[in-house]
This record gives sequence, C-alpha cells and structure tokens, in this order.
Amino acid sequence: MATKYVKNAVGRMIPEKINGKPVIPYQGVHQYKTTGRRYAPPLATCADYPEDGNKLEDDLKTALKKAGLKNGMTVSTHHHFRNGDLVANQVFMAASELGVKDLVWFPSASFPCHEPIIEYLENGTIHHIEGSMNGPLGRFASLGNMKGTGVLRSHGGRYQAVQDGEVVIDIAVIAAPTADSFGNGNGLTGESACGLLGFALADSQYAHKVIVVTDNLIPFPCIPWQIQGNYVDYVVEMEQIGIPEKIVSGTTQITKSPDRLFIAELTAKFCDEAGIIQDGFSFQAGAGGTSLAIGNYLGDIMREKGIKARFARGGSNQYLVDMLEEGLIDYILDGQTFDLAGVRSMRENPHHVNTSPFTSYNYHGKGNFAPLVDVVILGATEVDINFNANVVTHSDGYLLHGIGGWQNCLFSKNVILPIPLFRDRIPIIRDEVTTICGPGELIDVIVTERGIAINPRRKDLLDAVKNSQLPIRTIDELKEEAEKICGKPEPVEFGERVIAAIKWVDGTVIDVVKQVLE
Amino acid sequence: MATKYVKNAVGRMIPEKINGKPVIPYQGVHQYKTTGRRYAPPLATCADYPEDGNKLEDDLKTALKKAGLKNGMTVSTHHHFRNGDLVANQVFMAASELGVKDLVWFPSASFPCHEPIIEYLENGTIHHIEGSMNGPLGRFASLGNMKGTGVLRSHGGRYQAVQDGEVVIDIAVIAAPTADSFGNGNGLTGESACGLLGFALADSQYAHKVIVVTDNLIPFPCIPWQIQGNYVDYVVEMEQIGIPEKIVSGTTQITKSPDRLFIAELTAKFCDEAGIIQDGFSFQAGAGGTSLAIGNYLGDIMREKGIKARFARGGSNQYLVDMLEEGLIDYILDGQTFDLAGVRSMRENPHHVNTSPFTSYNYHGKGNFAPLVDVVILGATEVDINFNANVVTHSDGYLLHGIGGWQNCLFSKNVILPIPLFRDRIPIIRDEVTTICGPGELIDVIVTERGIAINPRRKDLLDAVKNSQLPIRTIDELKEEAEKICGKPEPVEFGERVIAAIKWVDGTVIDVVKQVLE
Repeated sequence: MATKYVKNAVGRMIPEKINGKPVIPYQGVHQYKTTGRRYAPPLATCADYPEDGNKLEDDLKTALKKAGLKNGMTVSTHHHFRNGDLVANQVFMAASELGVKDLVWFPSASFPCHEPIIEYLENGTIHHIEGSMNGPLGRFASLGNMKGTGVLRSHGGRYQAVQDGEVVIDIAVIAAPTADSFGNGNGLTGESACGLLGFALADSQYAHKVIVVTDNLIPFPCIPWQIQGNYVDYVVEMEQIGIPEKIVSGTTQITKSPDRLFIAELTAKFCDEAGIIQDGFSFQAGAGGTSLAIGNYLGDIMREKGIKARFARGGSNQYLVDMLEEGLIDYILDGQTFDLAGVRSMRENPHHVNTSPFTSYNYHGKGNFAPLVDVVILGATEVDINFNANVVTHSDGYLLHGIGGWQNCLFSKNVILPIPLFRDRIPIIRDEVTTICGPGELIDVIVTERGIAINPRRKDLLDAVKNSQLPIRTIDELKEEAEKICGKPEPVEFGERVIAAIKWVDGTVIDVVKQVLE
Repeated sequence: MATKYVKNAVGRMIPEKINGKPVIPYQGVHQYKTTGRRYAPPLATCADYPEDGNKLEDDLKTALKKAGLKNGMTVSTHHHFRNGDLVANQVFMAASELGVKDLVWFPSASFPCHEPIIEYLENGTIHHIEGSMNGPLGRFASLGNMKGTGVLRSHGGRYQAVQDGEVVIDIAVIAAPTADSFGNGNGLTGESACGLLGFALADSQYAHKVIVVTDNLIPFPCIPWQIQGNYVDYVVEMEQIGIPEKIVSGTTQITKSPDRLFIAELTAKFCDEAGIIQDGFSFQAGAGGTSLAIGNYLGDIMREKGIKARFARGGSNQYLVDMLEEGLIDYILDGQTFDLAGVRSMRENPHHVNTSPFTSYNYHGKGNFAPLVDVVILGATEVDINFNANVVTHSDGYLLHGIGGWQNCLFSKNVILPIPLFRDRIPIIRDEVTTICGPGELIDVIVTERGIAINPRRKDLLDAVKNSQLPIRTIDELKEEAEKICGKPEPVEFGERVIAAIKWVDGTVIDVVKQVLE
C-alpha cells in the first residue's frame, strides 16, 4: 500500500503515518491546539516497595528483567554525559543478550560514542531511535539502514511528547553521578559529575519503570534530589557511568577564526545598536566557538554601559560562570553544563539554577521560559530566503545533528543566527532548505561575515538600526553574493523512503528526512 | 433512603457513600492495592498564555472569575501560614460576593484564623471542607452545622487523593511569600516568609487552574521556584498574605511542666536503651513543648556518645536548627518551618532541605521517606489497649484537630507516643478510642509519666530493654492506674449523622466522626 502524503503549513509533504502511528502535520506557529490530557501512568503503592527504601539490584540486566523488559518496549536514556556516556550501550547489550527485539530507543540525544548501537539496530534488538542521531547513527539512518523511522524532537518537544503520552516510556534508565539506594540522584558530585539531570525529568515522572544507575552510591539522603527516588523502581551500582573528560565536551574555547570573530563582534554590535542590551535584559548564547565570542563581546558592552543582565540561559561554561561571578549576570538558568566550571558553579552557587525542559521549553505547559529571553543566538546548517532554517541535515542530505533546544529557543524575543555565508564552499543561504526545522516567521536576524539580513517581518528592528553603521542587507543579496563566489548549489537527489520525521514543539510534524542515495 | 454501613478492618462502621460518592472501607495496613492511574489534568498550550510571561491579574476576584469559578467547584489553599493566613478567607469572601454556591474547600489544613469561613458555610457558598478543621470549624462541623460531610486526610493522603484523581481541584489558590509574574514562587523571603510551599505542590501540579497570590512580587526569575510558574495560570499581588508573627505559631518553647519533662526524658532514655540512637540514625520529634524537650535530650545523648544523626525530619524550629549548625545532624528534611530560625536556615543552608508530601508521605508512590526514619515521636488525644490511636477528636467527641503527617509517620521504624496518663482528669488510655486514626499494629511504644508500654508485637523492643531500669508496664496496667485516679470515663453519646470521614493513607476510610449531641 502506497504511503499517503499531506502537505503541511510550510509546504512539506508529510506521510499520514510514521512507524504505523498517525501523525498530525504542522499547522503553523500557535495554530495547533491540543485538547488532550496529561499522560496518566499506572499508580504505584508503597506496599510493593522495600520498607527500608533500599532498591538496589545486582546489575543492569537484573533490573531490566525485573522491570519487565520485553519485545517492542520503549526504553529511554539521557544525554547529560554527552559523548562520554557509558550507559546506553550497556542497556542495549543487556537487552540483546536477553534476546529482546524491536525496542524503541528514546534517548534525549545520542552521540558518536553510541556508534556500537548500530550492532543492536542491525541484529533487531532496536527497531528505531526517537531522538537526535548525531554523527554515525544519523549516517546509518540516512542510508536507509534503520528498520523503523527516526523521530526527532526538540528538548521541549521531548518533554511534551512524554507528558502528553505521545511516547509512553516503558523503562527509563537514568544515569546519576550521585545517588542513594532509594533512587534520589543528582549530577553535581562524583567522578561522572555532569551538573544536572533535567533531560531525564520527564522520564522519571512518566515512565512505567525507572532504573537509576550510578557509580557514586551514597547513604540516603542524596541531596539535592534532582531525580526523586519516589519515582524510581530500581537502583544499580556500576563501576563507571561516564568518561569525565568526554562529558564536558563540545567547543569550549573561543573561536580563533578571524571570520567567526568578525561575525561574533557584528552580532554583539547589532544587539547593542538595536537596543536589546539594556539593564536587566536576558540572553542565551550557546557553547560553540562563535557563541562564546559573542558572550564575551556582550560582557564588554555590559561593562562599558555599567549594566547587568537579569539572567542568562545556559548551556553553561567557564565564560558564563565568570560573568555570573563578576556580577554581570544575576542568574544562570541552566539546562546543561558544558564544562567543569559549569558543574562547579551549579554545585556551589545558588544563583546558578538547574532547569529542565519542563520549565524552559515545554510547549504544552502554562507558558515556559523561552519567550522571556530577550535575545538568543543560535546556529543553523542552512537558512532559506524566507528565513526558514535547518539544523539537522547537511546540504548533502545526511541527517547528522539533533534539534536540541533550538526550536524552543525560536520563541525568544529576538532570534539571531550568526552563520558564515558558506562552509566548504557550499552556500548556507538557499532558495529552500533541505529540511525545515524552524519556520522563518520566528527567525529574526541572520548575521554573516558579509552583512546582516533582518527578517522583513521585524520592522521594529529594521527601524532601530536604520541609521547605524551596520552592514544591513537583504537575505537575497546575501544569497546572491554567496552564489557569486561558490556557484549555485546542485539539488540533492533523495530516495523515496522517509528515514526520519522532524517534530515541531507541539507534536506536529514540520518536515521529514528522506533516504540519501549513495 | 437509609445509609448503608460496612464494617471495616478495624471494626468501624463506614457508610457506603460520603458526599454522594462511594468510599472504600479500610482493609488493613498494606492490604488495599490501587489499580488506578495517575490523574490526568487537561493539557495546556503556550498559545493560550501571555508571550511575555506576565500573568498578573488585578485582584483575586478577577482571577477567580477568569479561572471559571462556578457552583460546586473544589477550591484549594495551603496552610504554610498556619494561624496567620490572610488568603483563604478572602477567597471565599470573593466567591460569596460572586454568588457562587456549594463549593468544596480543600485546604491542606485550616486553623482558628479561618473562623470567618463559618459565614460562607452558613450562606451556602461552601458545601463542605475536605481537610483538617482545627478548633472553631471542627466544633461547627461536630454540631452538625456543615451542609456536607468533612473529609480528613493526612498530608500524604492529601497528595495521594489529588494525584489519584480522588479529589479534582478546579482552582488552587497558592499564597507565595515571594513570586514573579510568571507564577514562580517560594516561601523563603518576603514579609510573609513561611519557609517552603510543599503542601501546595500537588495543587500546583494537578489543579485545572492555579492562582498564585503574593505580597512580594519580584522580577523573573523567582529563585528557587518551589512552585513552578509553568503550572500557574494567574498571579495576583496583594497587600498582605499572612501575619508574620502568627505564621510561626505553635509551641516553640520547651515545656516547663515537670511531668512533661519527665516524659520527655523517659522517651529519650528509652530510645537510648533500645539501641535506636546510633551513629547515622534518623528521627522526627515534632514541635510541641514535650517534643522539643525530647529533641534536646536526644542531642545530649548524641553529644555524650560522640555520634551524629544522618537526618532529622522537620517541622523545623530553633532547636533543630541549632543541632544542624552544631553538626549533630547532617540534614534536616523539612516539611514545614515552625519558627523564623527554621525559615532562615532553609533559606541559607543547603543541608536544610525542603520536602513535600510527595517525597515524604505519598503512599501511592514508589516508596516514600517515612519508613526510612528510625524513630518518630508523635502525639495522640487517646490510645486504646490495642494501641490504636486517635488524633482528631477529644474524648467528648468534638472534632478539633487535623491528622497532619501523623498517619504517614506511623510507617517509621519505631513509633513512640509520649503522652500524659490523663488530661483534665480524663484518662488518655481507653478500652476503645473515640476515633481510630491509626491502627495499633503501627504504634510501638507509649511513654507516660507512670511508665512505658511496649506493643507486644514488638518483641525486639521488649527484649532490648528487658534488663534496663526503665519502668516497663503493660498498657492495661497503665489504663487501670489512670482509671484508679480519675475513675472510668463515661461513654459519650453521639447523634446518627456522620459529620466527617477519616481517610487512611491509601484513600480508604478508617473511621468516621459522628455528630455531637449538645
């Protein structure tokens, strides 16, 4: 039977079903309104749990068996260890040894360290992955090698999907750098300290069974309890749950590239000229080399003006922590720590606050923090002339990145994408992006080394900078300039098969990724 | 139609329905196992909430109207302001002015300061109260003056009832000593600081509409967010939400009565001789004059032995805070602060941890903290010769107290009730208690000024102290001694009408209170 497709509100063709389940096509920003109810997991009773609170099991495999692992279940993990995670691979090795098939892996993100998972995708243990597939797993899926269809969600969309019961987690495995035998856990201390465990919050609250694994078991109570033992079924002690030096990975140094530094400076100048940098403002800059440079420039401007920010959103790092400690920022509201300075600060400083996708990003809540941020600096692999942007695929069609908090951050008051005009001689600004991850109406400014394009919808910003010295251009001008240098890019040919769906923050499907033909 | 009654597992006759809804009679400790699912409130969407996060409304009445207040709804408040609450009365004054009828008031507890509520019970605004009715409201109900039947729950039972959907809160009004316009709130700072807001946690998570009222509105973000704005619909600023000197009420001075001091010392000695006071042990002593004295004696013993407690459960107060700061206790796990020292300590000391009825007491969770406590010191209005105990009614039949965390604490490893043998010449130990709030099998030791009775089920305790100098008696001996002095008490005559139901921690009904005949 041929798959039926429906055109969604950004003009992309969406299959009626994905992994056998009906999907709702994207309907526009704020257009789809759920009438559902929060997911209702089965109630537990203390009668079924040890009176002494000791939920320790011998090993992960025993815990998985006790949790009732069986074919077709959904098993979740979190990605606070980033590329240093040692747990997810072990979960599926155990599942494979137990002969379980067709699992759905529901990580909050996956990394190159999860390349061994390919074995379990190939041997039938895992049917498909719902979550970002950074690097090798994305390439594997792009080539049509995954049995089911990948589903990518933003951090907020993942919380929404779990809260709404769109994804029912049968078993959550939550790695905690410190935990007690009751299941209380946190990421602040221990050899594998990763700062916080916010990405696992939904899993703890809604999964039918929850297993906490730790390499730093301490006597009750584990304080603070970022994960609350009252949601936890089993606790497993392990020799090592993460590789510290890889936990705090990512670019943690300011860029040295003159082009990137120029883009960073231009971005900060734009914020200043547009009147965004005011006493009590808020920002989210991210952790890439360019973003770090932008944060630094923002700091310079704040010092010069003698003002401070009310809060900054993390991903935290040494630079942001320095600004907090200098008094340039009242609070860091942090979703993940990118280096040990971030971990240390979150542990010690009550003004360095751990957040979760519920507080920060969940679209099916009574508001969230994202729209309260004055300016957010984001990346993109491609942008089109209508300001639609792509963060998951490269222009060659390969799915190599996750969405992260990117979609959620688009609700910030000012969304700026500082991007080079081309990468490896491939223009970034296109007639159409390969994959639409965010609708252009939410993206306000593109800053490149050859000029700044402001979304025509933002007349206020255009007005604010019209008398400035800033190199304001149209996005078409920027695109033409790039094509003059690199030539017009050839369209990529895709296969027919949908290998992944891209969810919008409200659970609708904004685009799909098709198989790459080798 | 005559009410049908069923005998429950402690021999009490329970009506089949209360307030028109079927009830489950108590079936014994750990006997009733729910097969239900967590309550699923309607999903919200950010599309319906202000983009700038500002949820401020002009006043409480406007917020109640916007929240859709109408006849028959359930409206909740919390009792962290204890006898200094200024909010609940205003809620029902507003409701009365709006002409709304037959509301259910669902406070986490009510106090004498809520006596004005009687007007709204009389004029039909409120149909009945589900929650403790300390003092005047209890007397009003006992005399058969409340339209519906009161329902009393423990702190944990209240969380369980909300979580399980047994009580659906239409509108929660959460008074927060500090809040931002997004609805984040805490009890740590501001003129009305009460420490924490844990009793309102369930309300915030499960109520269909949530109104935060505050007299200390600060710019976003209000840190920490003990109440998360993502659950909040409206925020109302008010001149004063609580009377500080009455917020930290309760007996906060050590008893000076020689009898009570003797009981306190005997209790501490018993704990010592029974081997309960060991390095790393845990205790919950409470906040009455006798309890404070017991805490002091425990401190003396710990100093003498050179040991410390891993944690103490609060209600916190100056004495407990002193022990924490002296290093005698690693952590205070606190459910409510009873004085300003408690508030200050919780604000400043990361080892003074705010807890909630979810973490501490919810029976329909994957365990809770109560059974992890080595020894808990509790009160009672009456105890019977089978160790069943009463905390809600006096021997004259009047319902004058709430259950608080009392039932939940019965799951602690050792439950000790230090009580005088008689009060106002009325014996405390009876053939049968007026109202059973806790089954005797969970109550281990009764300490009186004339001796200590150990529950025969606790052979281990009997053995542990058999060679001690402690005045160990049987409970029958203690009863007889009291009756020798005061005479055998006359039975009270009750009317037929059930004026209140006493829930057990699992949602079943353990007893009912009948109308007092004047």
